[in-house]
Amino acid sequence: MISKKISHNLANSSMIRAMFEEGEKLRKIYGADKVYDFSLGNPDPEPPVEVKSALRELAGSDQLKMHSYMNNAGFPEVRETIAQKINSETGLNLNFSNVVMTVGAGGALNVVLKTLLNPGEEVIVFAPFFVEYTSYIDNHGGKTVIINTDFNTFLPDPEILRAKITPNTKAVIINTPNNPTGVVYSRDTLSSIAKVLEDKSREYGNTIYLISDEPYRKLAYDVEVPNILTIYRNAIMIDCFSKSLSLPGERMGYIATNPEADDVTTLMNGLVYCNRVLGFVNAPALFQKVIAKTINSTVDINIYKERRDLLYNSLTELGYECVKPDGAFYLFPKALIPDDIEFKNRAVKYNLLIVPGSGFRAPGYFRLAYCVSLETIKNSLPAFEALAKEFK
Amino acid sequence: MISKKISHNLANSSMIRAMFEEGEKLRKIYGADKVYDFSLGNPDPEPPVEVKSALRELAGSDQLKMHSYMNNAGFPEVRETIAQKINSETGLNLNFSNVVMTVGAGGALNVVLKTLLNPGEEVIVFAPFFVEYTSYIDNHGGKTVIINTDFNTFLPDPEILRAKITPNTKAVIINTPNNPTGVVYSRDTLSSIAKVLEDKSREYGNTIYLISDEPYRKLAYDVEVPNILTIYRNAIMIDCFSKSLSLPGERMGYIATNPEADDVTTLMNGLVYCNRVLGFVNAPALFQKVIAKTINSTVDINIYKERRDLLYNSLTELGYECVKPDGAFYLFPKALIPDDIEFKNRAVKYNLLIVPGSGFRAPGYFRLAYCVSLETIKNSLPAFEALAKEFK
Repeated sequence: MISKKISHNLANSSMIRAMFEEGEKLRKIYGADKVYDFSLGNPDPEPPVEVKSALRELAGSDQLKMHSYMNNAGFPEVRETIAQKINSETGLNLNFSNVVMTVGAGGALNVVLKTLLNPGEEVIVFAPFFVEYTSYIDNHGGKTVIINTDFNTFLPDPEILRAKITPNTKAVIINTPNNPTGVVYSRDTLSSIAKVLEDKSREYGNTIYLISDEPYRKLAYDVEVPNILTIYRNAIMIDCFSKSLSLPGERMGYIATNPEADDVTTLMNGLVYCNRVLGFVNAPALFQKVIAKTINSTVDINIYKERRDLLYNSLTELGYECVKPDGAFYLFPKALIPDDIEFKNRAVKYNLLIVPGSGFRAPGYFRLAYCVSLETIKNSLPAFEALAKEFK
Repeated sequence: MISKKISHNLANSSMIRAMFEEGEKLRKIYGADKVYDFSLGNPDPEPPVEVKSALRELAGSDQLKMHSYMNNAGFPEVRETIAQKINSETGLNLNFSNVVMTVGAGGALNVVLKTLLNPGEEVIVFAPFFVEYTSYIDNHGGKTVIINTDFNTFLPDPEILRAKITPNTKAVIINTPNNPTGVVYSRDTLSSIAKVLEDKSREYGNTIYLISDEPYRKLAYDVEVPNILTIYRNAIMIDCFSKSLSLPGERMGYIATNPEADDVTTLMNGLVYCNRVLGFVNAPALFQKVIAKTINSTVDINIYKERRDLLYNSLTELGYECVKPDGAFYLFPKALIPDDIEFKNRAVKYNLLIVPGSGFRAPGYFRLAYCVSLETIKNSLPAFEALAKEFK
């Protein structure tokens, strides 16, 4: 009785539920500490103490109208704080009017796509990628065009991008640091993408937007994550605090644009309008204020870096092939057989829960999320070793 | 460069912004206390003390994972609390699986419509109505079918509804207590709507859903607001805490269904899936827990009732015609000339800010939101009197 498309999609999305249920079953049989669950990208460090204090301070204050409606774009002073933070890092000249507070990065992506897309317009994504993008694009009548990265580096090839752009291309989505590969795009890579979009925008007389989804931008290990707004004038930056402050359940994100973007006032008005009519209305009030008070805080990223080092070094020693990730909390090694679904099933026998690369449109690989303790990683190594031996 | 449809809608929605800016201008010239702004439905009482204490308690606790991801439907214990609250009021038998926590009622409506609608299916609404419904329906490819209520009572006529239902009708949206009229549908009215939907569902072999948007259900003055789930098996109840707890900025709502609804498991799975892919992901974590702790609290509705009485009695004495509202915080009187836009402009000359009925598809009327102090209402009365005299 529900929508035919949703009904169809439900059937396809049942794999993830099945995996989760498998994990629960294993935990019941063997105990939680004997199950090595690398399937969930759910940040496990607690939020920084500054977040806890800001929250206590606000909860205890007598400030009136703290939980009221505000402008659909969010509290102007919170937006200004974010604009100034970006300015201090980039030398750009944003103000509050270039920032819209959103219900997480997922909300932001939907708002941006609804604002931009006419029916049937194309949005390019680089595989492997977070497949939810295809749902977001479809929600607003767009068509997803998938381009593979070079699987030796997981970086996009600008010339392949150039060849795939049509007069119908409205936007390109990038995600750096990347889910699922952990790869961080360098300034050179981003500049070469920007160059292609500038050329093609000029050629077709259309603005082609570069939507940069950056929920992991603070989780980078000894490499720069360049600010996209400094590289491409028509970039739309999407950031959130789910990973940087370990607040995924609170749904806090934002969209930021370059003040020099084409027709930026209409773009911002469109974003605010779509934030409203999609039913987000505004990002949650109290946590906007928490964010403004903790804009300079980040979880201790050494926690993640130590895990990355241990897991990457151990797996490569065991013979797994893997691009070394510079960011996010994922490893994306090659499966030891071409059939990554079968490989996932074999891993389960060792109580190893992993996600097949097919789930990111990259069959033959698998994703490990290291949102688990160092201890769990250490304990999982014999299982990875036994699994590797099966295929020697 | 943005979507043509959004660009077009922006032009149309600029009236509201213009009105808001007019208000700001008047406040600067005359001082805030000399401007009688009845245009905004923004609850002004502070949240009940129980909400403040629950928030302080949670903010001060050492509970881990308080801000983490959870099931996309929300925390099971919060959903169970809501289910049991509904059961205690109705004798129904819901459990947590019949409840999805949402980003407000606006988010809930989008989730429900995306879950239900195939392209081009029809959704019936009764005018006057909150016009955002047309955007929500359009977001998900549906077609809005508008039926006027009887403007002497603002109640829908079940026989007109019967005549307007086609094999393509997927759902009917009702909103009680109503924005903009303040009218509350009685059990009889709801039963007669339910009867029509049962007959027509049977006739066409389709489930026709009754989506009941009830953000004002706790704001009713000496009348019953029947629970729709007790009246129609395929009703979908949408409630939020924006008005009942004065928490509009925090975006907390929920969807509840009858456990006996057609294929209820698929329906619930669809709702949870759409909550995720629309980018809501989950309702904000901390406030879910606040809600569970304050489920029996409500703002002091006598604050609103006193205002209703003063405003209704005064305006009718001054000769304004108005259906007496039993709920919400709106009055919807007849404009003193047929052109409600012109009437709104005339009102501005007396520093009275009102919303033309055309904005609710009911030209010739105007909406007053009494989210202002009793003092402001008292001070506004000479302005209403002077306005009335213009048209005598």
